[in-house]
Amino acid sequence: MPVTSRHSCFHMSAPVTFTIEKKLPGTLARVGVIHTPHGDIQTPAFVTVGTKATIKGVTPEEMQQYVGNQVALANTYHLFLQPGHEVIKAAGGLHKFANWQLPTITDSGGFQVFSLGAAFGKGVTKFAKGEAPEAESVNKKGINVYSREAATEHGKLCIIDEEGVTFTSHIDGSMHRFTAERSIEIQQAIGADIIIAFDECTSPSADYEYQKEAMDRTHRWAKRSLMAHKQNYQAIKKQGLYGVVQGGRFTDLRKESARVLGDMGFDGYGIGGSFSKEDLGDSLKVVNEILPEDKPRHLLGIGEPEDIVEGVLKGCDTFDCVAPTRIGRTGTIYAYTGRTKTSACGTITYPETVKLNLRNQKFANDHSLIDPLSDGHVAQTYTKAYVSHLFRAGEMLGPQLASIHNLHFIVNFTKKLREQLLKI
Amino acid sequence: MPVTSRHSCFHMSAPVTFTIEKKLPGTLARVGVIHTPHGDIQTPAFVTVGTKATIKGVTPEEMQQYVGNQVALANTYHLFLQPGHEVIKAAGGLHKFANWQLPTITDSGGFQVFSLGAAFGKGVTKFAKGEAPEAESVNKKGINVYSREAATEHGKLCIIDEEGVTFTSHIDGSMHRFTAERSIEIQQAIGADIIIAFDECTSPSADYEYQKEAMDRTHRWAKRSLMAHKQNYQAIKKQGLYGVVQGGRFTDLRKESARVLGDMGFDGYGIGGSFSKEDLGDSLKVVNEILPEDKPRHLLGIGEPEDIVEGVLKGCDTFDCVAPTRIGRTGTIYAYTGRTKTSACGTITYPETVKLNLRNQKFANDHSLIDPLSDGHVAQTYTKAYVSHLFRAGEMLGPQLASIHNLHFIVNFTKKLREQLLKI
Repeated sequence: MPVTSRHSCFHMSAPVTFTIEKKLPGTLARVGVIHTPHGDIQTPAFVTVGTKATIKGVTPEEMQQYVGNQVALANTYHLFLQPGHEVIKAAGGLHKFANWQLPTITDSGGFQVFSLGAAFGKGVTKFAKGEAPEAESVNKKGINVYSREAATEHGKLCIIDEEGVTFTSHIDGSMHRFTAERSIEIQQAIGADIIIAFDECTSPSADYEYQKEAMDRTHRWAKRSLMAHKQNYQAIKKQGLYGVVQGGRFTDLRKESARVLGDMGFDGYGIGGSFSKEDLGDSLKVVNEILPEDKPRHLLGIGEPEDIVEGVLKGCDTFDCVAPTRIGRTGTIYAYTGRTKTSACGTITYPETVKLNLRNQKFANDHSLIDPLSDGHVAQTYTKAYVSHLFRAGEMLGPQLASIHNLHFIVNFTKKLREQLLKI
Repeated sequence: MPVTSRHSCFHMSAPVTFTIEKKLPGTLARVGVIHTPHGDIQTPAFVTVGTKATIKGVTPEEMQQYVGNQVALANTYHLFLQPGHEVIKAAGGLHKFANWQLPTITDSGGFQVFSLGAAFGKGVTKFAKGEAPEAESVNKKGINVYSREAATEHGKLCIIDEEGVTFTSHIDGSMHRFTAERSIEIQQAIGADIIIAFDECTSPSADYEYQKEAMDRTHRWAKRSLMAHKQNYQAIKKQGLYGVVQGGRFTDLRKESARVLGDMGFDGYGIGGSFSKEDLGDSLKVVNEILPEDKPRHLLGIGEPEDIVEGVLKGCDTFDCVAPTRIGRTGTIYAYTGRTKTSACGTITYPETVKLNLRNQKFANDHSLIDPLSDGHVAQTYTKAYVSHLFRAGEMLGPQLASIHNLHFIVNFTKKLREQLLKI
């Protein structure tokens, strides 16, 4: 048994623990291992996203054979709406339902109830503590039901009150409610190895006051999430809980959030909210200087190659992003240029990457490999002309091959960064 | 070297030969092996269809690992239009272009120029020998160019004359022309192991006179296809040529077609055109009693389980059909019922099959395997609830898994039939 975190929040043998193998002097970067009930995650690591319990266009078998990812993330909001967490529970949990053999994470659903349930940054009706409108009724599941009229001013309903969020489904407009306790209950039913405390997400354009209020509420919800998790003895043996640092682009709020959540003793931390490219590194630095060093840190929803380099150097351990499959589905792949780049802080050099749109006519008769410098199976097997043909012909195999390639590319990019850190 | 056909049409070591291992007494059924430059095909066999050099939703790796097909067919018409046969030739042929390691077939394009270039059974302007309208001009590729006005009466252009067919692309309406020689030239560029003589396809509703005329023209085109093939010394070392028996639903025409083409000495025979479920067996019987016994016979475009049983008992060796992937993409899978059925002629019993639509709500919480009686990897790994969820959520993995399963199912159904014939 390796040396792991000593102050786990619940009991001596927490299901999710973290071992640091090496720290890179002069930076916050570290190389480590997250231990979970479904296996270890060698960090830094890229987390593949399978929103609806499937990584779009990639089979679980292909993940194992050709992508080599160590961990996958599914979205609580989406699975709650479709097929419903009870269906996944009846299947024996996410791993059995989706034939996923590896460590898994579910997010809290917080981001999606804001970004999908309502127009992001607009259409959110907020109420301070005790000021939310009276619900019209309470349904048999104990959910506050608001009248449709409450939503009229912005079309879609997303009402935040102290207890939680009432929102409409992006699928059929039906009304639902998440609270901290409900999010944890749903995530326990889904059964991922790592679950995330319910948080309030904000628009990048939100002002200081709005951010502060949202952050404070996120902290209160974090405490309630922790309580709800502790009360389910079966779940705490199998699932670790992460808290989510918020605070938007305001340094003092980020610091406060890291301090408050750090003191609560989660199994790990998500870093959420909005960053600009310019201040990403600085924001992560201030947060990760405060967060407990012996707990893993996940940067939520960010994962372009240069962001990963920056995130790792500023103390993040895992990353997730839908970009590899999203851009893959439209014909764009990552490739190496053969040149190197130097990180913003000058600490390390890493391979330069580029995006190629294989739909481009110039690839129609180009019989070279799609990415000769990548050692992935797809990159070493299929040509630009063939994959280009598949996209122009509207064939499913195009998105499939591009998605496998892109995921392997980014997973492997992160893996090589790990190897490099070990060698420095 | 096994004992193979002695009267190959071109030379002593024809690239495609056939060995009969066993004949089932009292029927026309036989168990055999088709030898091709890319390997052997154990017959009876199901040929998977990859129209545009890709089997929809299934990777070449999955074909090998999970489907177990021995041979794949691509469509000349589609590949000619997109990406163009010259692109495939530049790639080094179909196998290299598409990463297909197994024996391959291309059809003649005859069926598609009628069914896609023009409304099937309508909109075809036919001209008897010497009566075709004068072309407006001849383009630089030597193709007759007809005026758009020639097509006005039926909207889409499809003009058949003695030399060939002028048709419009289903993609962009551009005008093209196939002749027997051109079809062979395109198929030589694509480079499949088995290529097919250019034929004229007819509507199921065509009368005797129309069918007779089309059949006679098909015979003349068959002879020209054979001549064109013989003239390319490089191609005849690597590709076998099949002729296509036509004649519609008229027994005397079918017999005549089998006789005329049988005498031409092709490497094998396709059986094309339209059949009704009722007379399929009878039509095949009259044809296969006449065709040379020592040449393989392919039933074009037909491949439901009971059709395969009927076709095999009436002397067919290979079958292709788009149904497994087409129905798979919409959520329908083949499954075994556990009961048996007896063939129409009473000769053999075989497993009864059924089609299940996994989108059905009753499967949403059904955590049993999608087809417990099938020994395929997908059938033994994924549940109805999961695949049902994928289809309802619009996830690509649904069509992918259903397509892999259906192809394995039908390939394996045919393989088991072979094993059964060997045991009788």
